[in-house]
Amino acid sequence: MNKIEAVQPRPEEAATMPYAPAVSVETPAELVFISGATSSPLYHKHPHVPEEHVQPDDIREQTRRAMENIKIVLDHKKLAWRNVIKVTKYLTDMREADAMHEVMNRYFGEWRPASTTICINNLSSPGARVELDMIAAGPPNQPQRHRDAELRRNKGKNK
Amino acid sequence: MNKIEAVQPRPEEAATMPYAPAVSVETPAELVFISGATSSPLYHKHPHVPEEHVQPDDIREQTRRAMENIKIVLDHKKLAWRNVIKVTKYLTDMREADAMHEVMNRYFGEWRPASTTICINNLSSPGARVELDMIAAGPPNQPQRHRDAELRRNKGKNK
Amino acid sequence: MNKIEAVQPRPEEAATMPYAPAVSVETPAELVFISGATSSPLYHKHPHVPEEHVQPDDIREQTRRAMENIKIVLDHKKLAWRNVIKVTKYLTDMREADAMHEVMNRYFGEWRPASTTICINNLSSPGARVELDMIAAGPPNQPQRHRDAELRRNKGKNK
Repeated sequence: MNKIEAVQPRPEEAATMPYAPAVSVETPAELVFISGATSSPLYHKHPHVPEEHVQPDDIREQTRRAMENIKIVLDHKKLAWRNVIKVTKYLTDMREADAMHEVMNRYFGEWRPASTTICINNLSSPGARVELDMIAAGPPNQPQRHRDAELRRNKGKNK
Repeated sequence: MNKIEAVQPRPEEAATMPYAPAVSVETPAELVFISGATSSPLYHKHPHVPEEHVQPDDIREQTRRAMENIKIVLDHKKLAWRNVIKVTKYLTDMREADAMHEVMNRYFGEWRPASTTICINNLSSPGARVELDMIAAGPPNQPQRHRDAELRRNKGKNK
Repeated sequence: MNKIEAVQPRPEEAATMPYAPAVSVETPAELVFISGATSSPLYHKHPHVPEEHVQPDDIREQTRRAMENIKIVLDHKKLAWRNVIKVTKYLTDMREADAMHEVMNRYFGEWRPASTTICINNLSSPGARVELDMIAAGPPNQPQRHRDAELRRNKGKNK
């Protein structure tokens, strides 16, 4: 995991920052582009059915649910929060940014991904107030496949 | 094309979803970052000339034109819709999302890229109601170039 | 630096465009995801302290300060503006796009990264009118490390 690094030109000023000025990732790697997550269920019917999109009023609970949706994806790919490179945070009210960060930091711990925070008009359901869009990276699978292919080729030669 | 994969933690719930919860891409690859496309011509004068930005009122037609603009880029890079990893969809009215997805699905077929949909104030021209921003990936050119360079070097030796 | 290329399906129409229709990057590479920059200081306290977010009224000066913030990151990573692949530009007033591009072009020179421009409600501080989010790429460090590792291994053998 030494391939994903926070870029900190002035680390002495980073104390209260909820994000790093940038994050670098070295490839080869597997890049994972995660769809924007709200507090709606990760999977839901399209067109939307209102019963699936009853949002909690508390921004903290909305953030927690969005993070849990992303965790389903990360877990499925066997990735940790430390593998997240970039987060784009869409809020309908910028005054809720601190509460959102408070909840996100519980998941990210000491790790600080790169970040952009934007206040927009609406999200995909009327009550949604936060949407989180992430890019993550994991180790490349390719070398393993190459090794397997080589193994198969060599197998024939060894007979 | 086995390097770009939809991440589906619960495939049994994916039936009506117009996007995958995430899409992974393995590198080495060529990543193509496509500029946000609206129904305005792909190339247009800057500063904008109003005659180049007369937008159709129909969201389906706006979506179709934006997709055709992106297709010019994909075709030029010899990439298919299946090579698109992530789409960020900007709408000025979230109620037009279903009509937009209906048109996009005609292009994407069975493929479901990762997606984020946001409702924003305005796009680059007053009548634009949809902007599509995509990231695609294709096979790396580098090995081919290396091979070519090697071929050229070896060519001299063979004389 | 031949790995980052502007994708220009119709180069003869590109004269006044402040961005390329797409930009491709070949990996292996080091991808650098830069956090959204405004005219606020790159590092600042969280929660925000209003004194740190007094924004100049001039969109050109706001753009210049955002670019200078990004330059701190690029310089730290030993990257140039030519290494920037994609820019997402968030404005609170789309009519300020031309002035923003004028300032950005002073930095980018002839180079045209891929671009998406969106008009949103608010940015992270009340007076901020432009936020710039960039993705850059540099040469991979990995081969160097591999070479170093190999050198260390070979060093032992040479004794």
